[in-house]
Amino acid sequence: DFAKIDHHRALRKGFPEVVFCQGKTQDQIITILKKMSEQYPNLLATRVQPDHFLAVQKEIPDIQYHPTARLFILERKPAEKKGCVAVISAGTADLPIAEEAAVTAELAGSYINRIYDIGIAGIHRLFSHLDQLWQSNVIVAVAGMEGALPGVVSGMVGRPVIAVPTSVGYGAHFQGLSALLTMLNSCSPGIATVNIDNGFGAGYLAHLINQLAEGEK
Amino acid sequence: DFAKIDHHRALRKGFPEVVFCQGKTQDQIITILKKMSEQYPNLLATRVQPDHFLAVQKEIPDIQYHPTARLFILERKPAEKKGCVAVISAGTADLPIAEEAAVTAELAGSYINRIYDIGIAGIHRLFSHLDQLWQSNVIVAVAGMEGALPGVVSGMVGRPVIAVPTSVGYGAHFQGLSALLTMLNSCSPGIATVNIDNGFGAGYLAHLINQLAEGEK
Amino acid sequence: DFAKIDHHRALRKGFPEVVFCQGKTQDQIITILKKMSEQYPNLLATRVQPDHFLAVQKEIPDIQYHPTARLFILERKPAEKKGCVAVISAGTADLPIAEEAAVTAELAGSYINRIYDIGIAGIHRLFSHLDQLWQSNVIVAVAGMEGALPGVVSGMVGRPVIAVPTSVGYGAHFQGLSALLTMLNSCSPGIATVNIDNGFGAGYLAHLINQLAEGEK
Amino acid sequence: DFAKIDHHRALRKGFPEVVFCQGKTQDQIITILKKMSEQYPNLLATRVQPDHFLAVQKEIPDIQYHPTARLFILERKPAEKKGCVAVISAGTADLPIAEEAAVTAELAGSYINRIYDIGIAGIHRLFSHLDQLWQSNVIVAVAGMEGALPGVVSGMVGRPVIAVPTSVGYGAHFQGLSALLTMLNSCSPGIATVNIDNGFGAGYLAHLINQLAEGEK
Amino acid sequence: DFAKIDHHRALRKGFPEVVFCQGKTQDQIITILKKMSEQYPNLLATRVQPDHFLAVQKEIPDIQYHPTARLFILERKPAEKKGCVAVISAGTADLPIAEEAAVTAELAGSYINRIYDIGIAGIHRLFSHLDQLWQSNVIVAVAGMEGALPGVVSGMVGRPVIAVPTSVGYGAHFQGLSALLTMLNSCSPGIATVNIDNGFGAGYLAHLINQLAEGEK
Amino acid sequence: DFAKIDHHRALRKGFPEVVFCQGKTQDQIITILKKMSEQYPNLLATRVQPDHFLAVQKEIPDIQYHPTARLFILERKPAEKKGCVAVISAGTADLPIAEEAAVTAELAGSYINRIYDIGIAGIHRLFSHLDQLWQSNVIVAVAGMEGALPGVVSGMVGRPVIAVPTSVGYGAHFQGLSALLTMLNSCSPGIATVNIDNGFGAGYLAHLINQLAEGEK
Amino acid sequence: DFAKIDHHRALRKGFPEVVFCQGKTQDQIITILKKMSEQYPNLLATRVQPDHFLAVQKEIPDIQYHPTARLFILERKPAEKKGCVAVISAGTADLPIAEEAAVTAELAGSYINRIYDIGIAGIHRLFSHLDQLWQSNVIVAVAGMEGALPGVVSGMVGRPVIAVPTSVGYGAHFQGLSALLTMLNSCSPGIATVNIDNGFGAGYLAHLINQLAEGEK
Amino acid sequence: DFAKIDHHRALRKGFPEVVFCQGKTQDQIITILKKMSEQYPNLLATRVQPDHFLAVQKEIPDIQYHPTARLFILERKPAEKKGCVAVISAGTADLPIAEEAAVTAELAGSYINRIYDIGIAGIHRLFSHLDQLWQSNVIVAVAGMEGALPGVVSGMVGRPVIAVPTSVGYGAHFQGLSALLTMLNSCSPGIATVNIDNGFGAGYLAHLINQLAEGEK
Ligand SMILES: Nc1ncnc2c1ncn2[C@@H]1O[C@H](COP(=O)(O)O)[C@@H](O)[C@H]1O
Ligand SMILES: Nc1ncnc2c1ncn2[C@@H]1O[C@H](COP(=O)(O)O)[C@@H](O)[C@H]1O
Ligand SMILES: Nc1ncnc2c1ncn2[C@@H]1O[C@H](COP(=O)(O)O)[C@@H](O)[C@H]1O
Ligand SMILES: Nc1ncnc2c1ncn2[C@@H]1O[C@H](COP(=O)(O)O)[C@@H](O)[C@H]1O
Ligand SMILES: [Mg+2]
Ligand SMILES: [Mg+2]
Ligand SMILES: [Mg+2]
Ligand SMILES: [Mg+2]
Ligand SMILES: [Mg+2]
Ligand SMILES: [Mg+2]
Ligand SMILES: [Mg+2]
Ligand SMILES: [Mg+2]
Repeated sequence: DFAKIDHHRALRKGFPEVVFCQGKTQDQIITILKKMSEQYPNLLATRVQPDHFLAVQKEIPDIQYHPTARLFILERKPAEKKGCVAVISAGTADLPIAEEAAVTAELAGSYINRIYDIGIAGIHRLFSHLDQLWQSNVIVAVAGMEGALPGVVSGMVGRPVIAVPTSVGYGAHFQGLSALLTMLNSCSPGIATVNIDNGFGAGYLAHLINQLAEGEK
Repeated sequence: DFAKIDHHRALRKGFPEVVFCQGKTQDQIITILKKMSEQYPNLLATRVQPDHFLAVQKEIPDIQYHPTARLFILERKPAEKKGCVAVISAGTADLPIAEEAAVTAELAGSYINRIYDIGIAGIHRLFSHLDQLWQSNVIVAVAGMEGALPGVVSGMVGRPVIAVPTSVGYGAHFQGLSALLTMLNSCSPGIATVNIDNGFGAGYLAHLINQLAEGEK
Repeated sequence: DFAKIDHHRALRKGFPEVVFCQGKTQDQIITILKKMSEQYPNLLATRVQPDHFLAVQKEIPDIQYHPTARLFILERKPAEKKGCVAVISAGTADLPIAEEAAVTAELAGSYINRIYDIGIAGIHRLFSHLDQLWQSNVIVAVAGMEGALPGVVSGMVGRPVIAVPTSVGYGAHFQGLSALLTMLNSCSPGIATVNIDNGFGAGYLAHLINQLAEGEK
Repeated sequence: DFAKIDHHRALRKGFPEVVFCQGKTQDQIITILKKMSEQYPNLLATRVQPDHFLAVQKEIPDIQYHPTARLFILERKPAEKKGCVAVISAGTADLPIAEEAAVTAELAGSYINRIYDIGIAGIHRLFSHLDQLWQSNVIVAVAGMEGALPGVVSGMVGRPVIAVPTSVGYGAHFQGLSALLTMLNSCSPGIATVNIDNGFGAGYLAHLINQLAEGEK
Repeated sequence: DFAKIDHHRALRKGFPEVVFCQGKTQDQIITILKKMSEQYPNLLATRVQPDHFLAVQKEIPDIQYHPTARLFILERKPAEKKGCVAVISAGTADLPIAEEAAVTAELAGSYINRIYDIGIAGIHRLFSHLDQLWQSNVIVAVAGMEGALPGVVSGMVGRPVIAVPTSVGYGAHFQGLSALLTMLNSCSPGIATVNIDNGFGAGYLAHLINQLAEGEK
Repeated sequence: DFAKIDHHRALRKGFPEVVFCQGKTQDQIITILKKMSEQYPNLLATRVQPDHFLAVQKEIPDIQYHPTARLFILERKPAEKKGCVAVISAGTADLPIAEEAAVTAELAGSYINRIYDIGIAGIHRLFSHLDQLWQSNVIVAVAGMEGALPGVVSGMVGRPVIAVPTSVGYGAHFQGLSALLTMLNSCSPGIATVNIDNGFGAGYLAHLINQLAEGEK
Repeated sequence: DFAKIDHHRALRKGFPEVVFCQGKTQDQIITILKKMSEQYPNLLATRVQPDHFLAVQKEIPDIQYHPTARLFILERKPAEKKGCVAVISAGTADLPIAEEAAVTAELAGSYINRIYDIGIAGIHRLFSHLDQLWQSNVIVAVAGMEGALPGVVSGMVGRPVIAVPTSVGYGAHFQGLSALLTMLNSCSPGIATVNIDNGFGAGYLAHLINQLAEGEK
Repeated sequence: DFAKIDHHRALRKGFPEVVFCQGKTQDQIITILKKMSEQYPNLLATRVQPDHFLAVQKEIPDIQYHPTARLFILERKPAEKKGCVAVISAGTADLPIAEEAAVTAELAGSYINRIYDIGIAGIHRLFSHLDQLWQSNVIVAVAGMEGALPGVVSGMVGRPVIAVPTSVGYGAHFQGLSALLTMLNSCSPGIATVNIDNGFGAGYLAHLINQLAEGEK
């Protein structure tokens, strides 16, 4: 009786409760996912540990493991896709978080345009992608270190930007604090920020906005 | 030559550059607004000081002053309004920030539904407004103190929530830090956060999302 | 001579000194518990390491190990139980701390009502338990992430709430700081907070209040 | 429509909503208090400004002003008093917060025993009051600077201690942070902490516990 | 005897000791400047208060006051100018700090190219100035808010960049901390940072580098 | 009954309780000092406000006011002086704190050698004073900004160094935090630190050590 | 050429340079200690790793390892002991730091009186040792958690107190920050603080003061 | 497509993009370095892991590994060396960062003068090197603990000083924060700071300045 699955959520929010695996034991994760997989065709579990996969798969054979994004995914009835979310990242080391966002939004029913490693130290790399960014409904911009990418993009493209600071960096980066503060203080309007390394939350919100833009409420 | 107005912005972002008045002298503000008012019918200046108004009005007679929201507004060609943004606040002391958001989105062309003083210490006050929240395209949720309102709302309504922490509080509130952290750490997905007291940024982003939801890109 | 057991405490506080095992060597822990077990029928040791158990049990065969709560317990003369303490938690990952509180208060002589995984992302889960909460004398509310549960409960139930922030979270959670600040800044009166992950302190205080409510001083 | 009074609260919590005046305009405060004074015989407004008093008194002639505690009080039907709350302070400069706690609990229906200026730099001053502390049901312990008083008291007296850190201090005190951390990290169990300078919250909780101890639920 | 002027400094560092006026009384400032003006033809006093000027001028009639940069300047033997330092700023409110840097380097003997209000919210404003930046030996880049300008410039121009964070901003800006961290974490190499609002230090260092580049050691 | 003077202290510590005036009202200060002046010939009150002096002097005519050190002093029976305490400061703006230390130790019975404005930006100024430092029993070293003076001195002189960080600085100084951390992290042993701006505590401790060195216990 | 031994130090400070081993490779440590052991009869190396001991001992056979205090010690010519330093600790987990202080002062030539586990949660344990504390020249007081012991002791005993915060604690202890701030903010004068876990620095300074008290300069 | 090499950089900045290996997988590192090694004769990869070397060497046989500096280096066309950069360090444990700076500047084409272990606890060690420091064009000063070395050097030598704080220290060092703040707050002008442990950035900037000083732009 350690977990009360929030069954209303599928109704309220259009997607069943997503399981946050950090801090849960393998047994707890299996019990929760098992029970949910009997009721919902699609599932998402975040921040999973690789060594839990085999045991989970034993109980739910068609569950998949996405190693970069650290996700378990069940996708028996793929959602029909509509509209485009751009997921961009400043550096290569931001990939796990960018992929967490991309896969979340994809599973929920968005097309994804991934554009990675276009950080501001070589800002010209961003310019050749401006058209693609205007063609998406919403942009998820992921960056560590100084975290300036989301603000620069928001200054150039008239789309909502969801900024995701990552813990990539060292020293006065303070595990992502520096990138977080940069994004919160951006002078460009049209931007909002999620928690450090919260690719899931950004992908989820991006899909919500994309859906609205495609006329679904 | 202390200011280079960003004229591309009206094209890129659908709204002329908004003037951030904090830290500018009265002369600088007048010069900038004067020059812009010759090119754009609508203008917004944020974080204004009451005692600058008379001097500004002398130069731009049809400019208006919104005291609660601390804004100067020029609205010669009111934008046609479409779709609804809900602006909600936890307490009475959050009004200046909530109004900054509301007036910004209104001026840009959104209908606003204001629902104030429904903080979680008496959470039943929120329940009677759930329908209204579902009827808006996007929700701006403003809160100081513990800042839990946006997370609770996001858990109940399937709409994007833009969370605005305010500096209302004392002691371990640390001028809004506590509310900011609460919002960033919300367990409900579908939420993103702007800077402490940044009603302007929240209103602007809300309008951008509202526009998309109403089919304008 | 590294430890001076505080023998007055059983008199002053109604419970012998509780041993905090973090940072103590296995030898120190055994020596202290051994000496105390000769004087007191009931004992509690917190934040124990699993691999110390066998060695401790060798010296005190009837000592028990509670793995979730990370406790060693000696209970030769179970206290007579009186009155009810509710222990509630926001998520599944908060269980170790919630159990630390529950087992502490139980050993000291309180009945416990455990209600777990009712965090505010799906707040309706809380509503079906309001009666139970009114029937307890005092509530221990455990939460990580944004830590809003204690404030919401305190707004709905007229009982003292002891808030326990946990280190469950990531990024701008800063190992529990975010949940701690949320609780300290709660708008609901009738609430006070203990250290991050301090289930023991919360359980102890809850029992003290429960005892008073049952007419024992 | 800037304020929605929480009328359920008098039922839920046994006391009408308390008005937090910081950040509210004089007009807002008067409107709220006026409306409430028509429904409730007793009222409390905290963190008031002295220069608001005359205007408030004009509308509610029998309202009183407590300058040290920074409170407005309406007490038309004094609550019957029962049981004792001890309010103790470390220094003279902590008086405003200690009085805020004392007056709050008194208005709600507790007897108060005030023992001030017994900080640990001269700890013998505390010893002559130990009997009085044992005779109260609960202790509110207020301290700034190093904030050690609550922990010392809790180590000597088997009563719940509500610790209130104050912003009295300078330098590395960081406006009360130092005292707050001291109290949260206290080794004595039986203690919980409220926000820096939150005398009101401490007094309210103390009364709640005192009531329980006197057999009222 | 409250001040020991560091007379070696003119030898060691090519410029007499610069007087930091914050925290000094008017009398102390006059005494120090008077004594120095008898030995050195050129002087600089930083962070001065406007209302000290008349009294200082009475003693040293040819001293000048620079209000934007908050400087007192004595320039009896203007240094011969050589080489160019670019001083750029992100916003209009950063002017006092940018001017402090510019005037310091100018007095010490550098030509200055001022390019203000080219922050990254409208990054195209920067592009038309790239040639000018390549033509200077060193760049002082001043920015508040998210503080991304120095990193972007350093990514585009192969010159040493001295980054100056300013306290312009609000909320999670924490009086310049956010801009400071952004600059320290910049991915572009070729950049180093001075204290928040330390225009003087940046101007001084820029001149030192400019001098080296012009062949003076 | 707001103040309980700690009369044991004159016995325990050789000096009556020192009155900390910050946060006390004028009436409280007068009442406390009056009562104490009837029992003790010598008194010290710290962090006083200039505008309280006349009222205090009316009640205790022979009390003196030290404006730089912000002290009220009563010295009817000057202590016999013995042994030398060196009080050194890095800058002119550190004088109020340096003087607070010097006057405290002097009043308690130490000879003082004041050496001011010898900060490490011109470290040769320190060298000419090394002999004097060796001739004192203990050194109080006061510094703001980077706060390096105490560590440098402690590396050169084999005497106990009491380091006093001051709040003199700006930006990333964070009101003295930077200087405090520098001193706590000093590589030179033989150094310990007091609170930011706590000249009183440093002077008191210096006198205690000086007394021991002169053979008094 | 990675290390320049500071040979002046034995002259300047009466003890050869102490080797700080954290962050040094085993080879670097051996090379440094070897070279020094040829010149000095007594040596101290702090923060050593157990697995370096065998290799070090191979080169310097009479070196000793003190596991609790994490020290390597060479003591060929034991210093003549004089005067007493009391080293006291609040809890058992503070032993490593307390022993680091005790062994350092002992090696340098002080008698040590160790009194451990007398923290303020059971303050009566302290009282029976007051005489011993008065009989020492100086007190090193070591504490983690809330860190109140040094302030309480300093309030009761007229001897210099060197406060050592330890990293023993959890949650809002922030690795010793809480105990550090408590000690810096102590109301008792006669106290100064060293870095978190810096037993060595405290022991060194205590010996310096003890020496002075015994008439050696 | 996880990495977009910034080929403009070799043109813009005179050196190809430097690969930051922390957070990249071994496969990503090999792919990036392989591709770059086909286009550029010289390469630098920072913060490498020792166990990646063999795999990288298999693909690029003439790549070298610098263990202290944690670098991979390809140097097929050594740059012609010109002008001198001094790299100095306070302690032996700072070597990895000092070497990262030295090797970076060397590879880019600067002569390096390494002077290590001359921290301010024994400041005389610095004095014998002042001439060498004056003979270099620019100084990289690396220090952990209190981080005072750069400020002291800058006070004595009229050359640009690039300060590098390191994470060497413990307790209130907060992983380099203390050293960082010291350097940012230095009273000596002519100094600027890079991120904690950012030897690479310091070496790169030093080379840029050295180049300018040698007449190359
Ligand atoms: N990676 C993630 N980051 C933030 N929130 C998440 C994440 N994954 C799931 N969640 C949310 O966490 C909640 C589940 O927490 P729990 O009750 O501990 O299982 C759900 O409300 C999810 O929406
Ligand atoms: N209240 C506000 N908070 C945050 N950003 C703002 C605010 N008002 C205007 N801005 C932005 O600040 C920039 C103007 O800065 P400045 O050039 O200093 O006037 C514009 O890009 C606006 O989008
Ligand atoms: N400037 C000061 N800084 C720190 N502590 C002080 C200061 N002045 C007095 N004290 C101490 O504060 C205590 C008095 O506090 P109070 O009872 O509030 O007057 C005494 O124990 C003094 O030792
Ligand atoms: N050790 C380092 N510290 C800071 N920045 C670095 C470091 N090494 C490389 N860089 C910069 O980081 C960027 C590479 O980031 P990435 O695309 O993730 O490899 C390049 O622009 C480099 O200039
Ligand atoms: Mg890259
Ligand atoms: Mg309200
Ligand atoms: Mg759950
Ligand atoms: Mg007192
Ligand atoms: Mg602008
Ligand atoms: Mg000076
Ligand atoms: Mg113990
Ligand atoms: Mg060394």
